[in-house]
Amino acid sequence: MASFKKYRVGAKVGLADIDPGDERFLEDCESDSEQRLRLDALAESLDELQNLLHAEGKRKLLLVLQGMDTSGKDGTIRWVFSRTSPLGVRVAAFKAPSIEELAHDFLWRCHAVVPRSGEIAVWNRSHYEDVLVPVVEGWIDKAETQRRYAHINDFERLLTETGTVVLKCMLHIGADEQRERLQARIDEPAKNWKFAMGDLDARKKWGLYQRAYARALEATSTDAAPWYVVPANHKTHRNLMIAQLLVKTLKDMKLSVPPADPALRGLIVP
Amino acid sequence: MASFKKYRVGAKVGLADIDPGDERFLEDCESDSEQRLRLDALAESLDELQNLLHAEGKRKLLLVLQGMDTSGKDGTIRWVFSRTSPLGVRVAAFKAPSIEELAHDFLWRCHAVVPRSGEIAVWNRSHYEDVLVPVVEGWIDKAETQRRYAHINDFERLLTETGTVVLKCMLHIGADEQRERLQARIDEPAKNWKFAMGDLDARKKWGLYQRAYARALEATSTDAAPWYVVPANHKTHRNLMIAQLLVKTLKDMKLSVPPADPALRGLIVP
Repeated sequence: MASFKKYRVGAKVGLADIDPGDERFLEDCESDSEQRLRLDALAESLDELQNLLHAEGKRKLLLVLQGMDTSGKDGTIRWVFSRTSPLGVRVAAFKAPSIEELAHDFLWRCHAVVPRSGEIAVWNRSHYEDVLVPVVEGWIDKAETQRRYAHINDFERLLTETGTVVLKCMLHIGADEQRERLQARIDEPAKNWKFAMGDLDARKKWGLYQRAYARALEATSTDAAPWYVVPANHKTHRNLMIAQLLVKTLKDMKLSVPPADPALRGLIVP
Repeated sequence: MASFKKYRVGAKVGLADIDPGDERFLEDCESDSEQRLRLDALAESLDELQNLLHAEGKRKLLLVLQGMDTSGKDGTIRWVFSRTSPLGVRVAAFKAPSIEELAHDFLWRCHAVVPRSGEIAVWNRSHYEDVLVPVVEGWIDKAETQRRYAHINDFERLLTETGTVVLKCMLHIGADEQRERLQARIDEPAKNWKFAMGDLDARKKWGLYQRAYARALEATSTDAAPWYVVPANHKTHRNLMIAQLLVKTLKDMKLSVPPADPALRGLIVP
């Protein structure tokens, strides 16, 4: 299996170091059908591990998904969790904040939907939007951006120190790949509903977004809550890499079913 | 396909009329492997229909699951939604109410988790707990019980008149079947964590619970939000019947992808 280290943001790895077209996690798995089988096997492992997480009933897992429009956040959730019961996986999608949300600090709406014990939460966009859009649009200055990075790190430390494993994945696509995907949403009538004119505005600021992402990732990739850059031009590569990362992470948690209860030995149900 | 009518609570059908061991929905599907294939096909149809519900983005579906301990609420969710993306299915499990929840009317915590547009919500237990436990324990009198039935019907009318299709399924098992399932949780050490001593207390009041269920179902099975009694001694029967009911219900909604947007014709992504 390829190593995740090279994709983990840190002193030596930044967003710009990763090629969106990289297909390292497809190695030894050349045909489409092989890739599908491997993904399916990982999805089933994930289901088993989620059951153990639930049975243990103590710890939690938070998966944060970020990426430019069309980078495949929805698709990742659909395929990586294709075998997991909705009982144990809760998805939160963060849109432009509502008036009520804007009336609170930017972590308020996120805190409300952190995973509960035994649960996996998947965030489709997240609190990181608040160090991306406002930075690109110039609504906040450098000092405020730094303060927000610190708030984010503090918040994530709270989560990790209270039993939540935090994984953050940046779905990294290239500008050309995005053009093709947006164009498909325009050209295929049945996909029109997925397209919004605003998507083109964000695309115009591609470079600014990449820079804001690179800085945010660098400032908030910690030992406890690391960022991984996931090459995502190839959709199955993206899915396989994230599924493998999740399976590895859950295995490393050494989950197990609670021990037998001696008080139940010999009990007969009337 | 067997008809759902005979299982729909109304003037002619009550809880006592349905045999928990009934296997009508396994007809023409004798071997285990055939049953598994059929369930899998239904689960995939459900995924496609959920995608359409999401694409349409207007209506919602609420599935309420009730039943005695071990009746298979978790298992139903696991198998019926085994192919659906967690993006579009949100599960809420209602436990004994918290102090905060008790400080509000009994519908407050339910209203907070109704499905949003394009979503399926599945309730593992529900507002119906408040016309079961308190009735059996004698905490509320007949007049209050009747008031609660009316509150429930009003609440569900609000939901159905604002775009939510409401389906309610009572997972109906027999007392003997429950004994076996509880005993298995005691005898198998790896299942001990699923057992609570309180389960035996509720079991002692089996007859009272059946009566409270029968009355609640009768009082709240409306045209807009009907109750179905699902024979659930046979787990695959239970799953197949509920999956079929969901697929039929979603098909009857005549969902479709929003029409092509003429404004996008010929647009080229820069």
